[in-house]
Amino acid sequence: MTPSKPIVATMIGDPAGIGPEICVRSVASAEFSPYARPMLIGSLPVVERAAAICGVQSRFRAYRTFDEIEFRAGEIPVLDTGRFDPKSYELGKNSAACGQAVLDWMREARTLAEAGAIQAWVNAPVDTKSVFMTGISHEDAYAQFDPPGTYQLRISGPLRAVPVSEHVRMRDVPSLVKRDRVLEVVKLLHATLAKWGLPDARIAVAGLNPHAMYEEDREEIAPAVQDAIALGIRATGPATPDAVFRQALDGQFDAVVTMYHDQGQIPLKTAVFEGACTLFLALDYLRVGTPHGTAFDIAGTGKAQHKTMLAAMNTAASLAVGRGFPKSSRE
Amino acid sequence: MTPSKPIVATMIGDPAGIGPEICVRSVASAEFSPYARPMLIGSLPVVERAAAICGVQSRFRAYRTFDEIEFRAGEIPVLDTGRFDPKSYELGKNSAACGQAVLDWMREARTLAEAGAIQAWVNAPVDTKSVFMTGISHEDAYAQFDPPGTYQLRISGPLRAVPVSEHVRMRDVPSLVKRDRVLEVVKLLHATLAKWGLPDARIAVAGLNPHAMYEEDREEIAPAVQDAIALGIRATGPATPDAVFRQALDGQFDAVVTMYHDQGQIPLKTAVFEGACTLFLALDYLRVGTPHGTAFDIAGTGKAQHKTMLAAMNTAASLAVGRGFPKSSRE
Repeated sequence: MTPSKPIVATMIGDPAGIGPEICVRSVASAEFSPYARPMLIGSLPVVERAAAICGVQSRFRAYRTFDEIEFRAGEIPVLDTGRFDPKSYELGKNSAACGQAVLDWMREARTLAEAGAIQAWVNAPVDTKSVFMTGISHEDAYAQFDPPGTYQLRISGPLRAVPVSEHVRMRDVPSLVKRDRVLEVVKLLHATLAKWGLPDARIAVAGLNPHAMYEEDREEIAPAVQDAIALGIRATGPATPDAVFRQALDGQFDAVVTMYHDQGQIPLKTAVFEGACTLFLALDYLRVGTPHGTAFDIAGTGKAQHKTMLAAMNTAASLAVGRGFPKSSRE
Repeated sequence: MTPSKPIVATMIGDPAGIGPEICVRSVASAEFSPYARPMLIGSLPVVERAAAICGVQSRFRAYRTFDEIEFRAGEIPVLDTGRFDPKSYELGKNSAACGQAVLDWMREARTLAEAGAIQAWVNAPVDTKSVFMTGISHEDAYAQFDPPGTYQLRISGPLRAVPVSEHVRMRDVPSLVKRDRVLEVVKLLHATLAKWGLPDARIAVAGLNPHAMYEEDREEIAPAVQDAIALGIRATGPATPDAVFRQALDGQFDAVVTMYHDQGQIPLKTAVFEGACTLFLALDYLRVGTPHGTAFDIAGTGKAQHKTMLAAMNTAASLAVGRGFPKSSRE
């Protein structure tokens, strides 16, 4: 089998949540990217139940191993190792079985992505409570969701932001704002965006402090920006933190490097656009997360909207073929 | 003279900027609040020049002292002490004369406000460069713009946020997030909103850290919120910082207490609404600032839009009579 189009493989998420429903709706959608072939990683009975709930007519076919998969017209492959017992869960309820399934499917996805068998790995919503019910340590669990050494580029419409630090206490943030680290993220972002189809991205580097007017702004961030410019990167900064996201919305920048988690998450989650998702920098493959929760309260009703999931898959497809970010419907 | 309606007095801002133009347009507007009487504090020749530039037909009359002022139909009083020489400035240029005029006019405004002669004091755009050209120290100048002991409630459409600290380095912020201080701001905000016409305001208190899940969130902010609730205040928190502004936009809260300057300024300046202004808590009178700059590049052209200035005056008028915030045009 020689793949003519990249494979976007989606892990269906917690079986008890809305993940399977929004996955089947998305892969069956006429709006699914023309640049890629979809497949799912999960359990065929869970997928078929979701399809029935949503009235999705597509055919899904289970394969025990990736190598057996055939991409046939009118059929969507589901990599189903058979380890998940479809009688072991109830819609809308946490369980260790569902948590374990998610961990297993993520391991499958990672293995395939690392081997280059799939070109993009998308995750549907995971319920951390179910994951913790398996007995996994919080540290090990978070390493699955936020792999060490990666940086998370979150996108929402025209806003794209990657922080130099993730879930860190504010008191510990200033000590992480160092010239080398900031430059590392700027270089990584520049190279990754180029690979994805934005060869000369305009990168704003936010200051740490109000109006970007204190020590770290001058002594760490400004030199890092100069270093980046000397490398030929279109970097700007330190940018005034309370102005830079408006400027990005107005089209002045392709992405913003932020100094802490909330600096970028606050504007992205306040000015909501369709198609929000999270991409990981410093991986050899595309990995995409969605900001959805499992929405246990509406699981099984078929009411969950799948636009965000579909947009995440289509973003993955577009970036995988180096065509840049798809236009957002609200841009 | 017994004022039947509160007086909203507006300091015209730097004579060389757009302040005088947006002031004359606003006080002459048919949309000026029915709840208040307008007056200006500044220089009559500057005001008349601005009116000529903008084609505003209203009559302006100068008074040397406040006690002489008569509010007559079809006439807008200008408190003009006569100290500013209208030959001493050029539109679009910084000068010590303009800086000194602004300092003098702000002193007049403060004196009148503190004496209860005017019910609201609005500031048109000031140019800090001109102010510094007078030789005033930065410290003394900032004390005029950010009076010590006050807190600044910034509003933009349905978003309203007041930080417990202003222009403070991020590294110094965590040490200011203390139970007593947070409670003080919540109480002050609650009492002030009640005075302005929101007797039972729903106040969200943002956490300091990502997902509000670290020490200060638990040990300082959570107890402060409990203290506030025990006092009968409808407080909620610590709220997840990257979710609370979306919740406020969706109408769940009337105002948000933030832990640092950019936490509130980033969402307010990203999700821009008409009618943005700044109000000061802990003053006995209403003081209102606008987020405008002096826009020297367009001063004298009559191109500056006055909607934000007018909205600030009308917000002041509405709050002064205890009618709450006017509806934003984009709400």
